[in-house]
Amino acid sequence: MKQSKILIPTIKENPADADIKSHQLLLRAGFIRQNASGIYSYLPLAHKVLRKIEAIVREEMDLAGGVELLMPAMQAAELWQESGRWYSYGPELMRLKDRHSRDFALGATHEEVITSLVRDEIKTYKKLPITLYQIQTKFRDEKRPRFGILRGREFIMKDAYSFHSTQKSLDDIYEKMYQAYINIFSRCGLNFRAVIADSGAMGGKDTHEFMVLSEVGEDTIAYSDSSNYAANIEMAPVITKYEKTSEKIEELEKVKTENKKTIEEVSSFLHVSAEQCIKSLLFKVDDKYVLVLVRGDHEVNDIKLKNLFGAANAELASADETKEILGCTIGSLGPVGISNVDIVADNAIENITSAVCGANEEDYHYKNVNPIRDFQVSQYTDLRFIQEGDLSPDGNGTILFAKGIEVGHVFKLGTRYSEAMGATYLDENGRNQPMIMGCYGIGVSRTMASIVEQYHDENGIVWPVNIAPFDLHLIAVNMKDDDQSALAEELYSRLKEAGYDLLMDDRQERPGVKFADADLIGLPVRITVGKKASEGIVEVKVRKTGEVQEVYKEQLADTISNILTSL
Amino acid sequence: MKQSKILIPTIKENPADADIKSHQLLLRAGFIRQNASGIYSYLPLAHKVLRKIEAIVREEMDLAGGVELLMPAMQAAELWQESGRWYSYGPELMRLKDRHSRDFALGATHEEVITSLVRDEIKTYKKLPITLYQIQTKFRDEKRPRFGILRGREFIMKDAYSFHSTQKSLDDIYEKMYQAYINIFSRCGLNFRAVIADSGAMGGKDTHEFMVLSEVGEDTIAYSDSSNYAANIEMAPVITKYEKTSEKIEELEKVKTENKKTIEEVSSFLHVSAEQCIKSLLFKVDDKYVLVLVRGDHEVNDIKLKNLFGAANAELASADETKEILGCTIGSLGPVGISNVDIVADNAIENITSAVCGANEEDYHYKNVNPIRDFQVSQYTDLRFIQEGDLSPDGNGTILFAKGIEVGHVFKLGTRYSEAMGATYLDENGRNQPMIMGCYGIGVSRTMASIVEQYHDENGIVWPVNIAPFDLHLIAVNMKDDDQSALAEELYSRLKEAGYDLLMDDRQERPGVKFADADLIGLPVRITVGKKASEGIVEVKVRKTGEVQEVYKEQLADTISNILTSL
Repeated sequence: MKQSKILIPTIKENPADADIKSHQLLLRAGFIRQNASGIYSYLPLAHKVLRKIEAIVREEMDLAGGVELLMPAMQAAELWQESGRWYSYGPELMRLKDRHSRDFALGATHEEVITSLVRDEIKTYKKLPITLYQIQTKFRDEKRPRFGILRGREFIMKDAYSFHSTQKSLDDIYEKMYQAYINIFSRCGLNFRAVIADSGAMGGKDTHEFMVLSEVGEDTIAYSDSSNYAANIEMAPVITKYEKTSEKIEELEKVKTENKKTIEEVSSFLHVSAEQCIKSLLFKVDDKYVLVLVRGDHEVNDIKLKNLFGAANAELASADETKEILGCTIGSLGPVGISNVDIVADNAIENITSAVCGANEEDYHYKNVNPIRDFQVSQYTDLRFIQEGDLSPDGNGTILFAKGIEVGHVFKLGTRYSEAMGATYLDENGRNQPMIMGCYGIGVSRTMASIVEQYHDENGIVWPVNIAPFDLHLIAVNMKDDDQSALAEELYSRLKEAGYDLLMDDRQERPGVKFADADLIGLPVRITVGKKASEGIVEVKVRKTGEVQEVYKEQLADTISNILTSL
Repeated sequence: MKQSKILIPTIKENPADADIKSHQLLLRAGFIRQNASGIYSYLPLAHKVLRKIEAIVREEMDLAGGVELLMPAMQAAELWQESGRWYSYGPELMRLKDRHSRDFALGATHEEVITSLVRDEIKTYKKLPITLYQIQTKFRDEKRPRFGILRGREFIMKDAYSFHSTQKSLDDIYEKMYQAYINIFSRCGLNFRAVIADSGAMGGKDTHEFMVLSEVGEDTIAYSDSSNYAANIEMAPVITKYEKTSEKIEELEKVKTENKKTIEEVSSFLHVSAEQCIKSLLFKVDDKYVLVLVRGDHEVNDIKLKNLFGAANAELASADETKEILGCTIGSLGPVGISNVDIVADNAIENITSAVCGANEEDYHYKNVNPIRDFQVSQYTDLRFIQEGDLSPDGNGTILFAKGIEVGHVFKLGTRYSEAMGATYLDENGRNQPMIMGCYGIGVSRTMASIVEQYHDENGIVWPVNIAPFDLHLIAVNMKDDDQSALAEELYSRLKEAGYDLLMDDRQERPGVKFADADLIGLPVRITVGKKASEGIVEVKVRKTGEVQEVYKEQLADTISNILTSL
């Protein structure tokens, strides 16, 4: 493709409203343009990248047994009413009325459409399992669209849905999809983790998010420095065994700690470490109040608390509630002398000795607090967030934290939709059973942005070979020079014939502009036809390493082939 | 692909609400399912067909210099307000509000988005021309969605837009696009015509519609039996030279024709042919009344009438208006004695002799009416619709009529959008000029339905090789028979390796069901592994011809290759 015929509107300066690198670079390198908040046009280069990602997704989905179809974006409200999501989805669901005032949703996901389709067309266990997928534009009216195409309102997704008659069958396909996702993101060149995630209220035990490691990610991942273990921090269990913190058990002592409320203030004032403090928090777990104890340097994980009680909600009690139930302020709580609420504690508390805690009285704390002797706990269990430095939950290595961008999600849905929408099959005994479902999503356009987050330098994007919009950037430094333009045209034809997809900069621009644009666009290899064109010599530059070499045109094909396979 | 793993829900009987063959067959063969009126899911087979059509479209568009991108479906209302179409498009434009109550349109076409994009990014003649295209889902809230995916509310289109600094450049690209469309529809196997169409109020002279010949088409095409000439009947000029209809000129005679109003009633009553009658119609052309004369067997073409007067509107005067202006009823009109309105006549009237016409008096007609002697015409010109049997306007052959389905449209837009939206460029003299535009659409999903309209028989669809969802249908008659299943699996592997995309019917169904489904689905070649499997013999059936032969498995590859190249 000649650069004079394509639309690549590069920009020199960083656009004011672009905060992160992928947004800045995709704008500057002429890949995307905003049409409205969170809504973008994918210009020709971006379109090529998207199609490369889509091709990888298709190949791996097909290999994993997926069958592609295409469902509509406009979805009758009735379907969403059947599933209940018409009422629960909130303002993120784009809604509209047709000319007859009938309600429609613009597809944010397609569980309803696919479940109704399969419900109507599959009636027997003999036709299960089946895995259907599509690559399609999705609509979500994000409250705060931002980061360019990382969090947009109209975006491209691959969404897959599987239907099963047995849990075992779902487990099998889930495993295949999991592996397909590993393959897809690996082929996209991404540094990512498959992360154990929260299955929320959906039921079903297994769910993984695929997180691209990036500082701009909105999720925190806890991962092992020595194994594959990775989880959303909310989900990571803590398996640390705690030693007794001191052998010396002294008498309980009440001390004045005027205006000292936080762990930091109290521990500093009393010259003890945060580990020596007991953090006491009153939670309202569904309708019941519970005093939760964790060590001063730990944080309560409310998901673990919820799970402990099988509760739907767990939230900190308000100041008023605390006053009413325990007769003191939030900053003065402690377990000593409490008998009117249940006390649960993190495992770390069980072996704490001679600790400090609130005295349930403004401006006073206890010192030398010891479990059993000074307070009673109904249950010790894992109630805190994992921290960097903790033992990895799989026993291998130490936990580190990273920020991640969610690019994929595999999820065992179970019968959430099939029961709500009556998607049943006849089993071998002629009985109606709800289908068991899985769903599997990939943010295709978000994947493009994630790649840019991981593949750029100060001069622009550095596309991985698999994903680059073109393989090669052929630059004629001066198209008015006959030798240069002739050699450039010759190489353009020959490299095209050799099967390369290449972009030729045939513009009448200054060399500096051409080189800067080439770096910005970030194709893997740049071939520059300049002053030595008359000698048949061109310059080959590797975008990633900056390595430059002069090559006779006869050796160019070999050189390029070697570089591309080495990248 | 194994048939047990894919979703092809065939139906035996014609669905009650499907009126035309493509709708019936795409439903029955399990290609599409309706989600809401005019909104469909494309099941796996349809998806494969769409992707084949899209691949052809992409290849030809790229060859013609088009550059692909992808614009959003959600379009800010402001853009449509700039072009004015927010107000003029009517209820066919799907509209919605986002969470902040901002107005959006769902893209019915993308003139506004592309014009604003090019306006912002291209400033100089040096970067023109450029042709940009996309393949994308479009939304139009049709008043009466029908015929399945032929006239839907959500459908797939290829839309291209070109931008130019000179009319010559537009003409060049228009010609290339025209040729690309010829190639695309030819490669799709369609019997079609490129038809001269009405450019409407858009300005610009050239516009062609690509019409697939089909009885279910909603447009009528006038085409030559001996040349490439084809036009929408509204647009076809009549070049017939008329002979004098009689040499005998007799005296004007008023005759009683009680209750005879139509040409048929009058000509039959007076024993003359319709050709011997003058049909007189009072039109309101913009604000002026005009009496229009055509021969009794001809019909007034109001577009020609409008063009004659450079008018925006031309419509028949009402009965009241006719009474007021000419003092008689619509059925009694004639030119004799009329002096208060302009009289224009079709060329056929100039040489009519001794004709019959209304006497501007209820129940009376004139006989022996002759131009000049009996009435004055201000202008003779071509004012009628072309008819079957007329000379082709290009002078070659005779006109025939056909019904057509519009699958493509190429259009010289001119500066309609660039002027409204300020899309200008700096010319060589540094002056701002509006860009000259062309637009070029193809209904991709409609093309699929059109192919089915032309390629089917009483047993189902008969896909052209280029478009078929799979090349081959491999049927194991009895999967429980070890010889059959082993041979089927062997052939499946071997044919896949040989590069064929094949569907293998591995279902546990009766042979009759499998054969009927295979005919319905309509893959080009069926290979049946049946009782002679143990001898290594299979049956090969050509779907199109019904031709059947038995083939040893060793010769199968050659046989198939020969059949596919012959089709």
